[in-house]
Amino acid sequence: MDFYTESLKKHKKYSWKLETVSKVPLENRDDLSTYYSPWVAEPCREIAKDKSKVYDYTLKANTIAVISDWTAVLWLWDIGPEAWLPVMEWKCVLFKRFAWINAFPIVLNTKNVEEIIATIKHIAPTFGWINLEDISAPRCFEIEERLKSELDIPVMHDDQHWTAIVCLAWIINGLKITNKKKEDVKIIVNWVWAAWVAITKLLLLYWIKDIIMVDSVGTIHPGRKDLNPVKEMLTNITNTACLLNPNSSECIIWGLAEAVKWRDIFIWVSAPGVLTQDMVRSMNKDPMIFAMANPTPEIMPELAYEAWAKIVATGRSDYPNQLNNVLVFPWIFKWALKNKVRMITDDMKLKAAENLANFVKNPIPEKIIPSPFEPWVVDCVASAIRNW
Amino acid sequence: MDFYTESLKKHKKYSWKLETVSKVPLENRDDLSTYYSPWVAEPCREIAKDKSKVYDYTLKANTIAVISDWTAVLWLWDIGPEAWLPVMEWKCVLFKRFAWINAFPIVLNTKNVEEIIATIKHIAPTFGWINLEDISAPRCFEIEERLKSELDIPVMHDDQHWTAIVCLAWIINGLKITNKKKEDVKIIVNWVWAAWVAITKLLLLYWIKDIIMVDSVGTIHPGRKDLNPVKEMLTNITNTACLLNPNSSECIIWGLAEAVKWRDIFIWVSAPGVLTQDMVRSMNKDPMIFAMANPTPEIMPELAYEAWAKIVATGRSDYPNQLNNVLVFPWIFKWALKNKVRMITDDMKLKAAENLANFVKNPIPEKIIPSPFEPWVVDCVASAIRNW
Repeated sequence: MDFYTESLKKHKKYSWKLETVSKVPLENRDDLSTYYSPWVAEPCREIAKDKSKVYDYTLKANTIAVISDWTAVLWLWDIGPEAWLPVMEWKCVLFKRFAWINAFPIVLNTKNVEEIIATIKHIAPTFGWINLEDISAPRCFEIEERLKSELDIPVMHDDQHWTAIVCLAWIINGLKITNKKKEDVKIIVNWVWAAWVAITKLLLLYWIKDIIMVDSVGTIHPGRKDLNPVKEMLTNITNTACLLNPNSSECIIWGLAEAVKWRDIFIWVSAPGVLTQDMVRSMNKDPMIFAMANPTPEIMPELAYEAWAKIVATGRSDYPNQLNNVLVFPWIFKWALKNKVRMITDDMKLKAAENLANFVKNPIPEKIIPSPFEPWVVDCVASAIRNW
Repeated sequence: MDFYTESLKKHKKYSWKLETVSKVPLENRDDLSTYYSPWVAEPCREIAKDKSKVYDYTLKANTIAVISDWTAVLWLWDIGPEAWLPVMEWKCVLFKRFAWINAFPIVLNTKNVEEIIATIKHIAPTFGWINLEDISAPRCFEIEERLKSELDIPVMHDDQHWTAIVCLAWIINGLKITNKKKEDVKIIVNWVWAAWVAITKLLLLYWIKDIIMVDSVGTIHPGRKDLNPVKEMLTNITNTACLLNPNSSECIIWGLAEAVKWRDIFIWVSAPGVLTQDMVRSMNKDPMIFAMANPTPEIMPELAYEAWAKIVATGRSDYPNQLNNVLVFPWIFKWALKNKVRMITDDMKLKAAENLANFVKNPIPEKIIPSPFEPWVVDCVASAIRNW
């Protein structure tokens, strides 16, 4: 049986993967009158007097909303909210499996920024935290910032922050294996997704200096007049050659094949198969390839290794070195919920990435990052906030 | 320990009552690649091709949203969304306990009709059914009707339909005990809540003819100029004395004490303790009292019996004859979800009430309605749709 048929069969077998259940006994009239009518009125009154008590008496204490407008669905494009529900539902399963957090999926039937913000504000009272998923850039930045300032619960955009932490952990161990220094390493980041803006910022904080970003037109540099505000901001922090050249408007807009030459690390989410073996061969010695398109990566790992890549990572669970943010988000949320941490700072993110990298005692190309099933690995990132 | 302290203690013990869990095994990389990345893409693609397949592959198949704007919170008034969450959370526990349906609570942070409609439309793709709760009249009628016509999943306002069914079942058995005929019985309904508009309509469909409705001003009749559209409509179907009198503008606006005289059945949700023993004594022989204010009813059952009431029911689980719509909604939803029934018709509601009443073989004043814990009782109403 091929993967396609088997996946559909298994997914259909369970139909709904996520259930709502209760651990509270409900066996007789006394239970009903204590927990429901009439005595449920007592916790209601307590919360009405002091809103913070909602965390003592309700699911808000341990429940996260996983909300997506499915505008950054890398490989399936405009598939509609229902078709994105399997991914969001399974994401909620991961929260429970790895950190015993209750999560509930909401796929939005709108892509309008104002409507998204209003909707999330209106349903927020039920939840302890909002985890945004797969919202396209630059809309995701506005949505996250606005919600952070207008809501009284924490809000994070999954694609940005958690992916960035795993990606940095991957690079930290990749540098160990290839004996390269973070100060010297040259990185190319292709397509300006939310995740790559976040990882670029985090890499710069980690003191990696030479990053070129590329969009569908070519490299992002100050000479271009077609940039949105986020890309404008990126011209100030990436593309060192242009930064060093005061006459930066003369920068050449490289095409991808040009821009990839003499780079050490390649971070890419775009379309299946677009990275050729020749392009890999044009990179610096021992290149690291990060080919994240799903389910078919930009280059299949076996082809990349054939073209002398040193380390290859993908977004797939069935190859080594999966960039899977399940390594990060479950326990970060668990710890944050438990201790009412409202903000995951940049320092916490750097520390989380280092913890994750150091979890692998002797990194080798086939294993630069731990598996989420290794005991305590998912917990190890929590110490990045725990010890703050 | 008093009820107050005990309830708080028990509610606090469990903090969150509702959890999200998964029955799908997730033990290794194969599980992760089958159910999540990359092969989750296959059910996504299937649903993108044919939206109806979302019921084969996701929680939409068996998940209900329980949504409230807490504007019809009978006894607590303007308490805020967080303070209403304990009730909604527990409501979801009931769905699971009595019919194995997954339900999730959403308390809205808005009371604006347009915002409520927009929000529910935006989050609808996750759910198989929308159950609205505790939305005040007349707003609830517009919200329910608009959502019914604008969404592709069924929508019901809990307070109206399910309460009406239990209330009619109660009256059917009450008439058996008191040997009164439905054609002759005189009913007074106090305060025009959504539930009482629905029960009034259902009683009329059941061929009960003489119903007087009362609001905070007095009886609803055609001579009044201060009525909203819903109350205007009610002047056409209630208050027979006025209907029979062509010169109806001369109707006297009775006060409550006046209106209750010579009535057989008293259906009332208003404020604790407002029904006096004298008022009960002024009713027809063998009066039935339906005192639904919670947690303290309009008259405590022991006082009503002392004043010669024949049958007393309340909304409380700790007295006999609780009007609890848990007798109705779990299996109605279960059956409707399973068979994709989109609309619960009036005929189905009448049949459900009769089934519920007939479940009690020999009704006596202390037991006119079954307990939800009796085996199969919650299932018995489903046959009202099953056999349609």
